[in-house]
Amino acid sequence: MNDISSGKLRGIMKLADASGRFKMMAIDQRGSMVQALADALDKEKDDVHYDDVAALKTLITRVLSPNATAVLTDPIYGHPYSITEIPRDVALLLAYEESGYVSEGVGENERLSNPISNWSIAKAQRAGADAIKLLAYYHPDASSETLKHQQAFVRHVGDECEKQDLPFLLELVSYALEGTTKSVAFAKQKPDLVIRSVAEFTDPSYKVDILKLEFPADLKYTADYQDASFYAGDSAYGLAEVKEICQKLDETSTLPWVILSAGVDIEEFIENVNLAAGAGASGFLCGRAIWKDAVQYYPDTGAVTQFLENEATTNFKNANAAAENALPWFEHRQFGGAANVQVSKQSATWYQDY
Amino acid sequence: MNDISSGKLRGIMKLADASGRFKMMAIDQRGSMVQALADALDKEKDDVHYDDVAALKTLITRVLSPNATAVLTDPIYGHPYSITEIPRDVALLLAYEESGYVSEGVGENERLSNPISNWSIAKAQRAGADAIKLLAYYHPDASSETLKHQQAFVRHVGDECEKQDLPFLLELVSYALEGTTKSVAFAKQKPDLVIRSVAEFTDPSYKVDILKLEFPADLKYTADYQDASFYAGDSAYGLAEVKEICQKLDETSTLPWVILSAGVDIEEFIENVNLAAGAGASGFLCGRAIWKDAVQYYPDTGAVTQFLENEATTNFKNANAAAENALPWFEHRQFGGAANVQVSKQSATWYQDY
Repeated sequence: MNDISSGKLRGIMKLADASGRFKMMAIDQRGSMVQALADALDKEKDDVHYDDVAALKTLITRVLSPNATAVLTDPIYGHPYSITEIPRDVALLLAYEESGYVSEGVGENERLSNPISNWSIAKAQRAGADAIKLLAYYHPDASSETLKHQQAFVRHVGDECEKQDLPFLLELVSYALEGTTKSVAFAKQKPDLVIRSVAEFTDPSYKVDILKLEFPADLKYTADYQDASFYAGDSAYGLAEVKEICQKLDETSTLPWVILSAGVDIEEFIENVNLAAGAGASGFLCGRAIWKDAVQYYPDTGAVTQFLENEATTNFKNANAAAENALPWFEHRQFGGAANVQVSKQSATWYQDY
Repeated sequence: MNDISSGKLRGIMKLADASGRFKMMAIDQRGSMVQALADALDKEKDDVHYDDVAALKTLITRVLSPNATAVLTDPIYGHPYSITEIPRDVALLLAYEESGYVSEGVGENERLSNPISNWSIAKAQRAGADAIKLLAYYHPDASSETLKHQQAFVRHVGDECEKQDLPFLLELVSYALEGTTKSVAFAKQKPDLVIRSVAEFTDPSYKVDILKLEFPADLKYTADYQDASFYAGDSAYGLAEVKEICQKLDETSTLPWVILSAGVDIEEFIENVNLAAGAGASGFLCGRAIWKDAVQYYPDTGAVTQFLENEATTNFKNANAAAENALPWFEHRQFGGAANVQVSKQSATWYQDY
């Protein structure tokens, strides 16, 4: 039998559909959302109003949430105005980290993640969160100073989630120490970066429950996709290798994992979901691949709504269909089937020292 | 606009169906469940095993939960073994009070409610509760000592629920200071007892969110039901008066309210739901009227299951159908419609001092 504490169990059940597959939407973007709105409104980033970000998030949440098993939003722009738009049977994830990263005082191009100030996991729970999401930038070859900071940050969140008995969903995002992530050179490094990061954070000391991962290769640089709209014109590997990489990731992950979209176009994302699910992923947590093209219509909320109700809804349904092949979380080898999942410390007196 | 804190709002949304109607099942019985099992097993109450109570609760929860919008269970026998049986889209209510009551040191027949020791509302939240239920016995003409104790107990739970931002569902159960509740004399007193209790605990200082109430009259003693199987052979009032009593209760309740079943037979309970919904109740929280006849078959779990899958499921569906006429919680005059419900303290910085 595989024991799991009751709060985490209920939370994970709510995040997934009844079959145990995660079909989750992210609308917790802050920096990238403000930038996209700045572009749409032909403004500087600093001139984008809070109310516009909140209103756009509310609209996206209202139209698309019913397709999701869970919605991830942020406490700043998202939660106060759009929580009423999330249906009763769609779970709520709240973000813990400050948007973006800090690079001061560490090695060149290195990234430090930080919490939103005056926000906490206990507050998130009270405000209705069924689970906590933390995004940590990670490059396993960064300086030990940076590695220690990121590891301590993740460990802190793991400890706090354990204290509140809330599921901890850790999102790992790699980056380039040199050059850009949009290159064949980085595409070649990516499998190693993603898999080594998974190896690090599946250590039980981090107390992570679910990993939210980048696709561990880049299909823009995969030879077999040379006819696809997203192909970048240069190849790092072939499809057979990509499948092996996904398998290796799955072997490394001792935890259920889901795929993030990192803003790729929907065609590429559907391929990512298909390949990840084929290798053992339990679903996705996807934002921009589904709804990003809605932003350009703002402030014409009629046009935004029309896009969300049509193209974006179709995108979501296609992603959900791809996720039907995902591995239910309770079938992951960590659990070994629904029949083997049971609440930890079952007894007549568990609540006395819970 | 009618403001509500975000945790309470999410919790209340989860307890009700998407239309705002509560169709909730209670399986938190302890004393009465142990007694029913003792009868079924032809044992003394003290000889009933914990494991049998837990197993029966698990079975009832497994078969019937999918019909409910929320399930109320207890932390002792119910939670550790049956939480895995509650579907992801069925909310979880946990009981706070110790089963039964204490009568020592107070006036004759008076009842004091008490907490389960070493249990707390913060623990319930961590363990996955979407809301807290407290049963308080109440007789408005009890001694001031008893009244003060009960009022302080309710106020304590109201304060703790506010602290955790969890919905507080208060169940009020009246009793006879003299004689028995199964009498035409008590039936005549009941409307006054229920309505005066509602007047007391809707005071904002108690911080109650939803009231779980007895039907404010007794149809066993209602002349118009003289041909019904449950009629007791003597009348306290007619149906027109009962409808007026329900209206008066609704006028007194400044909070959404639901009806409890107190173990009456299903025919009578359906009438209770019809009449209460007609007067403005928002649904029900019902246990024994739906499943009580299953207990007699224990330990023949096959027979228990068969009863639950057939008669009890039919009972549940009939109760749900009756609740379709209930008033959605957000249509209660406290809220005034879904469009008027908004999260309190909405701002860009709400989370900083939340």
